[in-house]
Amino acid sequence: MNKNVIVGQSGGPTSVINASLAGVFTTAKELGAPHVYGMRNGIEGFLQERYVDISDYIRNDVDVELLKRTPSAFLGSCRYKLPKVDKDEAVYKKLFEILEKLEIGYFFYIGGNDSMDTIAQLTIYAERIGSDIKFMGVPKTIDNDLVVTDHTPGFGSAAKYVATSVKELIRDNKVNDMDVVTVIEIMGRDAGWLTGSAALSKGPDCDGPDLIYLPELVFDMDKFIARVAEIQKERRSVIVCVSEGIRTADGKYVCEYTDTAGRTTDSFGHKQLTGTARVLAEVINERLGCKVRAIEFSSLQRCAAHLQSETDVNEAFHVGVAAVRAAAAGESGKVIIIERVDEEPYQSTMGSCDVHLVANYKKDVPRGWINEEGDYVTKQFIDYVRPLILGELTDIYVDGIPRHIDNIR
Amino acid sequence: MNKNVIVGQSGGPTSVINASLAGVFTTAKELGAPHVYGMRNGIEGFLQERYVDISDYIRNDVDVELLKRTPSAFLGSCRYKLPKVDKDEAVYKKLFEILEKLEIGYFFYIGGNDSMDTIAQLTIYAERIGSDIKFMGVPKTIDNDLVVTDHTPGFGSAAKYVATSVKELIRDNKVNDMDVVTVIEIMGRDAGWLTGSAALSKGPDCDGPDLIYLPELVFDMDKFIARVAEIQKERRSVIVCVSEGIRTADGKYVCEYTDTAGRTTDSFGHKQLTGTARVLAEVINERLGCKVRAIEFSSLQRCAAHLQSETDVNEAFHVGVAAVRAAAAGESGKVIIIERVDEEPYQSTMGSCDVHLVANYKKDVPRGWINEEGDYVTKQFIDYVRPLILGELTDIYVDGIPRHIDNIR
Repeated sequence: MNKNVIVGQSGGPTSVINASLAGVFTTAKELGAPHVYGMRNGIEGFLQERYVDISDYIRNDVDVELLKRTPSAFLGSCRYKLPKVDKDEAVYKKLFEILEKLEIGYFFYIGGNDSMDTIAQLTIYAERIGSDIKFMGVPKTIDNDLVVTDHTPGFGSAAKYVATSVKELIRDNKVNDMDVVTVIEIMGRDAGWLTGSAALSKGPDCDGPDLIYLPELVFDMDKFIARVAEIQKERRSVIVCVSEGIRTADGKYVCEYTDTAGRTTDSFGHKQLTGTARVLAEVINERLGCKVRAIEFSSLQRCAAHLQSETDVNEAFHVGVAAVRAAAAGESGKVIIIERVDEEPYQSTMGSCDVHLVANYKKDVPRGWINEEGDYVTKQFIDYVRPLILGELTDIYVDGIPRHIDNIR
Repeated sequence: MNKNVIVGQSGGPTSVINASLAGVFTTAKELGAPHVYGMRNGIEGFLQERYVDISDYIRNDVDVELLKRTPSAFLGSCRYKLPKVDKDEAVYKKLFEILEKLEIGYFFYIGGNDSMDTIAQLTIYAERIGSDIKFMGVPKTIDNDLVVTDHTPGFGSAAKYVATSVKELIRDNKVNDMDVVTVIEIMGRDAGWLTGSAALSKGPDCDGPDLIYLPELVFDMDKFIARVAEIQKERRSVIVCVSEGIRTADGKYVCEYTDTAGRTTDSFGHKQLTGTARVLAEVINERLGCKVRAIEFSSLQRCAAHLQSETDVNEAFHVGVAAVRAAAAGESGKVIIIERVDEEPYQSTMGSCDVHLVANYKKDVPRGWINEEGDYVTKQFIDYVRPLILGELTDIYVDGIPRHIDNIR
């Protein structure tokens, strides 16, 4: 690589998005890139010419290890979506001017399906003006809703957090000899991958949650209350896991059944959902009269790096490695995908595909991986997720808490 | 020990309350106790003659290790408070009949200050009827609000969870280049020990939270909003940690400024508080107009055994050991206390004191350990807590998640 590299991070952070950054950075340096620049706050910051030389911050192997263990986007993120090329050429002109000035030959963007659209647009524009800059997408999202790839980096660690925390809460919930229903709200606006992962808490030492509701299916409040009442005949402690994005038949989000929820919109135009567990807990309390608790995993599920899955960290690192190698070999307008090549033991390899096949699409949990009643996931679902949460990194704790890479000041 | 042992767990669980159970069980067996029984759901279940022989469940050293790593009370807990001896003798008669029948010589109760009152009452009654059963209290509470003892088992692990999670959330919060105020609600109805521990997230790689409010001081809403606005002039990401129990000058809980909070009471007569962070986030949003997030650590902070402090686990185990040894040596009506004997390096030893000196009292964070403005803790506070969160146990993960001891079926 005889030209400089730029890398950015975009969208919601994960606990391993920096492992992908580490993969891009170390591989680009290995392949001889003179400078590896990092966009501050993604394409939005880059348009304001905010960037750093990553070598100023990642100086040795310990820094690389710390970077891999540091949650949230080290370079900062954004939720800015590039306009379509035909709508606003000015922004592309400006962007390519900056790229030119920095002598960039390779452009990497770590993000979800909105971010892949950024790569798609940039590739279209580059072809149009005859630029030879290589543009590559590096997948990331705790939601696991990207198509083509077997799964996405970030999902495995979030799933490990969900499974572990649900398991601990199941123990906690049955501590007193009383009827208690706990409703746990898990991220995933449209896709139920993360919520379904609550089932991985199940094992010889844990019964798992009692009910799991994914956003892929219509949520029926009466049926739900009836199921809870039925389970309560058998045991006093009931645990329900729900996606933040479940909706009733009329298309209304459950969290919209209250005043204070569902009123903000992020800059990608997505509604921010919260309060689903609270609404359900209140309905249970009203109709069944038992003690209820509502728990939101909130941002913790995407930033709990202390519960990273080793498999996930390694794969996150390697999608970064693969992106750089592919770009160095002349590929552009592609996104790295993970292919599952074996089940027992699990093995994966990295491939790539045209970014247009990924950008703006979304992958649901297949109907066949949800039980007939629509209130749990199947063994197939669990078998698919299990390998992704396996393994733990060697801890780096200092003064009793995990050490992270120093902030960019 | 030539008579049988009974042990119970009471009050809110912690992630190391089972380490104390392990300490009691293994030491009683070592000292020759024929049977070590466990009350199901504390004294409440025991009055219904619900108990187990712990040897049926803890059969080898691996079981002991798993028990130490299992959150929530293995035997089940209760919130039942024994009536004063003079108020209702019948319950005591019944209790001692059961103790007699099981040939109990030693009685251990693992709990907080409400549970220590149970030990106090039983000791009074035993003296009155001339029983030679030994009664010992084993301290536990994430709240760290017991007097006499330097600190309580359970606190260190909860503090490690709080410090780690706050550190991860601080990273998460600054990921986008926008004004965001996150309010994190932490347990501690009357004592701010756990909330103050958020400050332990501070280090070379983390600035720590911006503001910390403890329930020991009156909360002033206007002053609070002014402080947040002041901090926002310097940086876009603001993190506020608050105790669930903060109150305004008129004695009203902050969470009572909303409709849905503060309406339930547990059976010890304590109000259950929740919604403090939500109220504050809404006020910030209204008055300052920026993006806000409210995060409740909820039960996770008391059951996140995957983040146990090794120091805490070891001390929790040893208060159990010490209780059994003291009872075997003839002590009764006592509670085990932890004494800090050295600072650098930290060392502690176990002692005991009359249970009446502990039961029903509570230990606040000293005013001198909170800064003058009342919105942060001092270095003394941090130096006091730091050793308690140090060290990590060797993980026992199976299939990607922590393995616990099997449930009592």
